[in-house]
Amino acid sequence: MKPTICIEYCPKCGWMLRAAYIAQELLTTFTDDINGVMLKPSEVSGRYTVSVNDVEVFDRKTAGRFPEVKELKQLVRDIVNPDKSLGHSDKKT
Amino acid sequence: MKPTICIEYCPKCGWMLRAAYIAQELLTTFTDDINGVMLKPSEVSGRYTVSVNDVEVFDRKTAGRFPEVKELKQLVRDIVNPDKSLGHSDKKT
Repeated sequence: MKPTICIEYCPKCGWMLRAAYIAQELLTTFTDDINGVMLKPSEVSGRYTVSVNDVEVFDRKTAGRFPEVKELKQLVRDIVNPDKSLGHSDKKT
Repeated sequence: MKPTICIEYCPKCGWMLRAAYIAQELLTTFTDDINGVMLKPSEVSGRYTVSVNDVEVFDRKTAGRFPEVKELKQLVRDIVNPDKSLGHSDKKT
């Protein structure tokens, strides 16, 4: 079974569009590597987390900011397909 | 546990954007009624299905067309929150 990515976002904060955009970035890059991306409205205010198979790889609260796309793709790639090159998204930020 | 909606789409057909748009429509309307919406790239060519808790509510192959947003919201509503009014989306098409 391929990994499932979950983006849990606070709908009251207006983060649905942001979460959906990130989902599309991940689906574009990891089409063949993942089972899918789950968009999950959080019941916890201010929550914005990304997890792979229920293991959290990014938490906005911990980081104090939103993830950058490049960074998130690297975090996800390291779990779902470590040998995959991300092209220009693999350069250092 | 609230219901999970899954949109399975054929990525080779270029239906990711279409699936993501529908996911956002459903997340906007059913924020508090559902666990989340899963976007799942299909390994089956030409596949575009919507299911609620693994029960298929729309299949493009069977219908011979893509679902309309209004129609899909009614189908989902009938399962996740039958008493919910969809406002103008509840009028007959």
